[in-house]
Amino acid sequence: PFSPKCALKEENVAPPTNMLNVHLVPHTHDDVGWLKTVDQYYYGDRNDIQHAGVQYILDSVVDQLLKNPDRRFIYVETAFFYRWWKRQSPSMQQTVRQLVDEGRLEFVNGGWCMSDEATTHYSAVIDQMTMGLRFLNETFGACGRPRVAWHIDPFGHAREHASMFAQMGYDGFFFGRLDYQDRTHRMVQLEQELLWRASDSLPPPTADLFTGILPNGYNPPEGFCWDQSCDDPPIRDDPDLEDYNVNDVVSRFLGIAKAQVRRTNHIIMTMGSDFQYENANLWYKNLDKLILYVNALQANGSKVNVLYSTPSCYLQELHRANLTWALKTDDFFPYADSDHDFWTGYFTSRPALKRYERISNSNLQVTCNQLEVLAGPASRTGPFGEGESQTMKKAMAVAQHHDAVSGTEKQHVANDYARRLANGWQRCQVLVSNSLAALSASSAKRIYCDNLNISVCPLTESSRKFAVTVYNPLARPVSWAVRLPVNGSAYAVSDAKGAAVDCQVSRNRGFAVNELVFQVQAPPLGYSTYSVSLLQNGPPPASMKPRHPAAIQNEYLRVTFDPDTGLLSSLANLETKQSIKLTQNFYWYNASDGNNTESNQPSGAYIFRPNSSTPFIISQTAKTETVQTSVVQEVRQWFSPWVSQVVRLYAGRGVGGGNQSICGICSTCLGKEVITRLDTSIQTAEVFYTDSNGREVLRRKKDFRPTWTLKQSEPIAGNYYPINSRAFIKDDADQLTVVTDRSQGGGSIHNGSLEIMLHRRLLYDDVRGVAEPLNETSHIFPDGLVVRGRLLLSLERPPVAADTHRLIAQEMVLQPLLTFTDGDLNPNTRLEVRGVGVGNVCLLEHQFQSWESKVSSQPVTVSLQKLFSTMEVVGVSEMNLSANQWKDEMRRFAWAPQTDETPVLKTFQDISPWEVTLRPMEIRTFLLRVVLR
Amino acid sequence: PFSPKCALKEENVAPPTNMLNVHLVPHTHDDVGWLKTVDQYYYGDRNDIQHAGVQYILDSVVDQLLKNPDRRFIYVETAFFYRWWKRQSPSMQQTVRQLVDEGRLEFVNGGWCMSDEATTHYSAVIDQMTMGLRFLNETFGACGRPRVAWHIDPFGHAREHASMFAQMGYDGFFFGRLDYQDRTHRMVQLEQELLWRASDSLPPPTADLFTGILPNGYNPPEGFCWDQSCDDPPIRDDPDLEDYNVNDVVSRFLGIAKAQVRRTNHIIMTMGSDFQYENANLWYKNLDKLILYVNALQANGSKVNVLYSTPSCYLQELHRANLTWALKTDDFFPYADSDHDFWTGYFTSRPALKRYERISNSNLQVTCNQLEVLAGPASRTGPFGEGESQTMKKAMAVAQHHDAVSGTEKQHVANDYARRLANGWQRCQVLVSNSLAALSASSAKRIYCDNLNISVCPLTESSRKFAVTVYNPLARPVSWAVRLPVNGSAYAVSDAKGAAVDCQVSRNRGFAVNELVFQVQAPPLGYSTYSVSLLQNGPPPASMKPRHPAAIQNEYLRVTFDPDTGLLSSLANLETKQSIKLTQNFYWYNASDGNNTESNQPSGAYIFRPNSSTPFIISQTAKTETVQTSVVQEVRQWFSPWVSQVVRLYAGRGVGGGNQSICGICSTCLGKEVITRLDTSIQTAEVFYTDSNGREVLRRKKDFRPTWTLKQSEPIAGNYYPINSRAFIKDDADQLTVVTDRSQGGGSIHNGSLEIMLHRRLLYDDVRGVAEPLNETSHIFPDGLVVRGRLLLSLERPPVAADTHRLIAQEMVLQPLLTFTDGDLNPNTRLEVRGVGVGNVCLLEHQFQSWESKVSSQPVTVSLQKLFSTMEVVGVSEMNLSANQWKDEMRRFAWAPQTDETPVLKTFQDISPWEVTLRPMEIRTFLLRVVLR
Repeated sequence: PFSPKCALKEENVAPPTNMLNVHLVPHTHDDVGWLKTVDQYYYGDRNDIQHAGVQYILDSVVDQLLKNPDRRFIYVETAFFYRWWKRQSPSMQQTVRQLVDEGRLEFVNGGWCMSDEATTHYSAVIDQMTMGLRFLNETFGACGRPRVAWHIDPFGHAREHASMFAQMGYDGFFFGRLDYQDRTHRMVQLEQELLWRASDSLPPPTADLFTGILPNGYNPPEGFCWDQSCDDPPIRDDPDLEDYNVNDVVSRFLGIAKAQVRRTNHIIMTMGSDFQYENANLWYKNLDKLILYVNALQANGSKVNVLYSTPSCYLQELHRANLTWALKTDDFFPYADSDHDFWTGYFTSRPALKRYERISNSNLQVTCNQLEVLAGPASRTGPFGEGESQTMKKAMAVAQHHDAVSGTEKQHVANDYARRLANGWQRCQVLVSNSLAALSASSAKRIYCDNLNISVCPLTESSRKFAVTVYNPLARPVSWAVRLPVNGSAYAVSDAKGAAVDCQVSRNRGFAVNELVFQVQAPPLGYSTYSVSLLQNGPPPASMKPRHPAAIQNEYLRVTFDPDTGLLSSLANLETKQSIKLTQNFYWYNASDGNNTESNQPSGAYIFRPNSSTPFIISQTAKTETVQTSVVQEVRQWFSPWVSQVVRLYAGRGVGGGNQSICGICSTCLGKEVITRLDTSIQTAEVFYTDSNGREVLRRKKDFRPTWTLKQSEPIAGNYYPINSRAFIKDDADQLTVVTDRSQGGGSIHNGSLEIMLHRRLLYDDVRGVAEPLNETSHIFPDGLVVRGRLLLSLERPPVAADTHRLIAQEMVLQPLLTFTDGDLNPNTRLEVRGVGVGNVCLLEHQFQSWESKVSSQPVTVSLQKLFSTMEVVGVSEMNLSANQWKDEMRRFAWAPQTDETPVLKTFQDISPWEVTLRPMEIRTFLLRVVLR
Repeated sequence: PFSPKCALKEENVAPPTNMLNVHLVPHTHDDVGWLKTVDQYYYGDRNDIQHAGVQYILDSVVDQLLKNPDRRFIYVETAFFYRWWKRQSPSMQQTVRQLVDEGRLEFVNGGWCMSDEATTHYSAVIDQMTMGLRFLNETFGACGRPRVAWHIDPFGHAREHASMFAQMGYDGFFFGRLDYQDRTHRMVQLEQELLWRASDSLPPPTADLFTGILPNGYNPPEGFCWDQSCDDPPIRDDPDLEDYNVNDVVSRFLGIAKAQVRRTNHIIMTMGSDFQYENANLWYKNLDKLILYVNALQANGSKVNVLYSTPSCYLQELHRANLTWALKTDDFFPYADSDHDFWTGYFTSRPALKRYERISNSNLQVTCNQLEVLAGPASRTGPFGEGESQTMKKAMAVAQHHDAVSGTEKQHVANDYARRLANGWQRCQVLVSNSLAALSASSAKRIYCDNLNISVCPLTESSRKFAVTVYNPLARPVSWAVRLPVNGSAYAVSDAKGAAVDCQVSRNRGFAVNELVFQVQAPPLGYSTYSVSLLQNGPPPASMKPRHPAAIQNEYLRVTFDPDTGLLSSLANLETKQSIKLTQNFYWYNASDGNNTESNQPSGAYIFRPNSSTPFIISQTAKTETVQTSVVQEVRQWFSPWVSQVVRLYAGRGVGGGNQSICGICSTCLGKEVITRLDTSIQTAEVFYTDSNGREVLRRKKDFRPTWTLKQSEPIAGNYYPINSRAFIKDDADQLTVVTDRSQGGGSIHNGSLEIMLHRRLLYDDVRGVAEPLNETSHIFPDGLVVRGRLLLSLERPPVAADTHRLIAQEMVLQPLLTFTDGDLNPNTRLEVRGVGVGNVCLLEHQFQSWESKVSSQPVTVSLQKLFSTMEVVGVSEMNLSANQWKDEMRRFAWAPQTDETPVLKTFQDISPWEVTLRPMEIRTFLLRVVLR
């Protein structure tokens, strides 16, 4: 499967078949931000925090590879490689190209970063992988294309990641971390190498991924770390000096090699770790000697052969073995490395950063991907200056790193990620302004209200007349509620045709006095403009009723409240005539401080470990206020000075929403992990469902793992799973789905119950390296960071529930873009698509699983030519998911499962290159050539 | 002065004259043992103690020098370079030769190690320098010859070292440490560069050495350490990344450069430190950028020019300046880096190691240098196996390191030095056995009693008849007392001619019951044999009289004791009719534990800081026993269970000896610094004298430094000086000289008083890096290491005192070699000199200063042809002191002093190449070609 140009790989002499072949894989693991920022890591700045300088690693490795053609190295994180590459001289670049062509330097994984798997959204992961892989492709051609996915550090592994890797064309996948019980079980069963079937909807082998678990995380065997950061004894082979130790080293090595039992006569050893190889000479000089002295014993009959290798060379040997492999269809969550050490806290850690990342993704997809295409070059240079999307793309790409959106970085690094995203927004907003100017032929100044989440917008708060432009990023019409801070008490809103729009002014909870609410619509991938004018003698704001409401309802839903407590009490779908009991409240787990007889593990950025399985209730009752108008019905609930919620039903919408505001308060100096819990009458039988990276949904059962008999030791933390976009509980009659606005952790501990962790404030570090408690405060939030979030609820019949939740989740991910203009804006602007580049990558997705909707889980055929109203598609070539290879050139290794549980899934042929059929959960990537109609 | 082959040096474009030229000197300081052993440092073993691996430093530096021809590096310690060089491939050796030839890699200093200056003996220093410099010469030719001496780390600087460096042909000398007051004074006076006239006996400029004091020890300026071991910010010059800092770095650098004011428009910056450059890329990559960006400002009028340089290039520019320089004639002891931080403890630290080093030197000079020459190849391969001297030579060379014999290494490293010396002894003893077998034509088995210092010798303790062979390493006849442990009570001793020798048996204080004492003689560079037989019915052992003696005396000296206290009370020279009051006792200073209002500096391996200026007396009185026989008269004194002494007068010898046994006891858990103090009636006027490295003597005055006005803050420690071989006090009538058996520290705090520190046991580290208290215990000495030592006293008239102390000091340094054979040994063996190598280096020394003896301070003419009775010298070529350059090819820079205080010293021409004249204190080195007569 290797390109003929990659000479060394192609001609790689097969290791001897009658020996135990030990594949030494020199590698470095370079976090794209963690204890230091990505640029601090690149330069080797702030080495007082952690000694690490990637520029020197790459300098050194190239030098050392040149010294001995046997040596190999793999490199993983393109965010760093890109920084290095662009500073190299042409001759150094040529040298590196040759090393890559010869297979001496090999890229594995190759995305911009090694993404987190528990808290990322698939769209952002595909973007960051594509950015890295296409850079490698453009720089090195086919020899630069990684054959192996390599997630050695992420703390748990998502099935959707495996599915994506399969569709990106990887031949195999290696990782380092899995549950300690799972590892033991697999060691005993010889199932450390397996075939992961990562989709229940895509026909095998589309989402099949050969998966290998590395023997020692991603570290070298004990005693064999020869990095400058390690203290293991070097090989001292000068017989004239003291402490000659060759015999000792060789015999220790043979002992370790022989103890690693795998199914073939090949084993792998990762020779490297975090930011290692800054001085690669130390590693290679000793590895050269190790290979020399161990293999020298073959002359005396030793049957152990050591070689420099790479994961793809190792994988090739496993493939040659022509075995069948254990099949796995679930995922690798949650991850525990000991019986009280569940890495389920980071599912929620830094909820504000997680939300900022998610809306930045929306912003990127909408503004930088769609409007840049629609407006073409005019978007980048226009009346508002130089706009570009690269800053945002790179900021989003690094934010996918497994210590970025995961919330497991130091505070100053979290700040750096946020600042990068903010820079990205700034550059994107120029691009959007230019695009809208070009598309609308109006150079009116566009104003962005980035703080609407806290109801702050200087323009709307002060202007007597302004316009709101709504861009709809979806391929279907949507309506959307707009909430704007205002200081007037009455406004008139009209749409682009001048028709009046129903609106409501009510008392604001922010800095402005009031809040103006109305619903807007925009056509698919189009925009519309609304005018807002202050009325001098309008009606007074909607009245607030300070009493417990009995119920709020619209044409679709009815929500009742307990008159005594002010808490939710039931939810009914008026169309389907469903009704369930539903109590909702807020609680906090007291985070363990590690002072505990069972284990000294505290809760921290990674680890969730409550001191007790019973959370503290914040309040038995809520103070409430009610607003009921034609636009929206809402109940505002106050549970404590630091927890409040607004339950809303907008007119005409079939989902209810709860907006929470949680302050990570610490008045009693206890670590708090705040949850909301929905307790229902649904009979869940200890089962609930969570999505994987925003796509396929997996079944979760309490105190249960599908592939081994679990010994549960943390009844709460051990039952938490990542929720990236939704979770649901169901029985035969009812399905209650919660769609989240960001990644969170959650579980179903009790029958009929679903809990979601919303915020964490912790006072101790959890001893996994970050060396800071997750204690988010600032001068703005001295009492603890306030986090605001939204959960959307739908109650449906299970066989059709996905028809609702798939769409609302999509709307949550791709939000309409709002821009504002002061005064009048001619709403009758013409949409005109400008010159469009020829090489646009277009991803078409089927967003339903094969089993989840009788209606929607059918194949869909799309006419590419009719995809864009304003552009004609004149050329089309299908690519792999990461757009770094032509689909028809994909040649993946074939792997056979031990027991084939292949579901009967139909396959379809495209009618023509222009008429493509999408199966459930399929994503197809096309390179389009378009011209204006 | 550079060889034409050293192309880059020769053609070195002179830096601009109208600018401030900043010479950046990339360097590494590689201790030949300190916290780790020399081989641990070489390999990078035990990096848990200290991260340091010299093999990698040299690998890395060579790689990086090849990347940019402007880059320079200096290397210093040949002990390490040698280890590395012999493991390199021929092509790598060729590469390095070219770097050396081009001046890109330059050796400075170049001895086997960077020797300590306070505790070394000149003979061992010359040996270690010669070993390193000759290796460089043989490997690299003229371009490998260092032009600069470089003692950046030793803690104080000896005048004799400067004298040796001058005679070794160095053009200049740089160091890093000097007294903090001295540094300030010199900064103000612009005397950080000076001309050191290092001998009062040799005619200038023979011992003149240009000396430069480095601006920041040997470290880079603050903020500019780019080693992997440092955390200073790298130069971040990619404008696309965060934290671009070029402007900041450049302006900080210019500030530092301009603040360093020197007399020329050249300044030096040492860019390196301990074990740095293991990953030289970090340093050079940032230095390249620094040079680029600082010099780029010249286009805008900047007058600062930065360049890669070496100490010799910098020195060359200073020489070109053609200035006159401040003259200095004293030395740089003691060294203090703050007002309570005097580095005068290490003068005595580890007295047992200091003694072992000193007798190993004797062993090396005697056995390995003399007997190997006399016996030729037969010494190396003979009836007793393979003998060689290299092990001992290398062990002695590394023992000269400034953290070796200084006693400032960790305990395990001290053990390693001792073990290396012991290995050297073992190999030497084979060589001696072979030599004596060859010379004497007898293959009788030679037995060595290495533990005679503690009166242990299995042979003499058990044998009824044995022979003792005494080899005299001096060029004059000597007599010597032999003390042997025996279990019989009466013995007969006879010389080689069978004549009876007077002997004494007295009660032993060791494991054996008795001790046999007799005097032996041996001809110059020859040997004689004595037979010892047990007598069955001999006289009883000499009786011990357990009462205070009034006096002991021989034909030369009379020593009286106080009848009440048992202490010494007077000393008289019976020949000169001199008599002085002399009280001697033992005291201990309580070492500061750092718990002190003035300073938190404790006493430690380096630092001497007594808690009080008044030492504790160990005992007001001594218990005594007296033995008075015809062989020896002795008074045995017990001061406490842990301090005892024997005062001895041998028949016929004009010096008295005191043998002390001190246990570094710590029963009260206070750090103890044990001294002996001689209080006399001599009127010293606060002046005393100490030798420098065993050669010239310097005058010391209490609370006084010759070159600046001292502000004394440590009345004891600040008045301590190193005593390498002798110290004396005198007035017009009397000179009392104490000759020591090892290096020690001492001072004269009171009029007529001389104190010598004998032992130290400390409970705290002194925070200078060694990170261990100097707390010598072992399973053999659980209560603290017992140290035995000897002081020899002579009382003479000052104008002729040197005639005595020079000779006895020489006998102390070069001790007769004793070998034993069981049973009979035919004493009538013929001395036959075997084949002798053609290229033997011979050092001829004049051991008197020009002023110290009317008789002996005269020039001496030596006939090389008559030097050896058994060999004819047929060729002679004079060399520099380190034997790495022909004397007539020495071309040293000429430097002019500001005020020439040149003493009137006659110069002499040799009568012929065979008849060479030695002036006072001159050492001349000849390469001889000899044949057997």
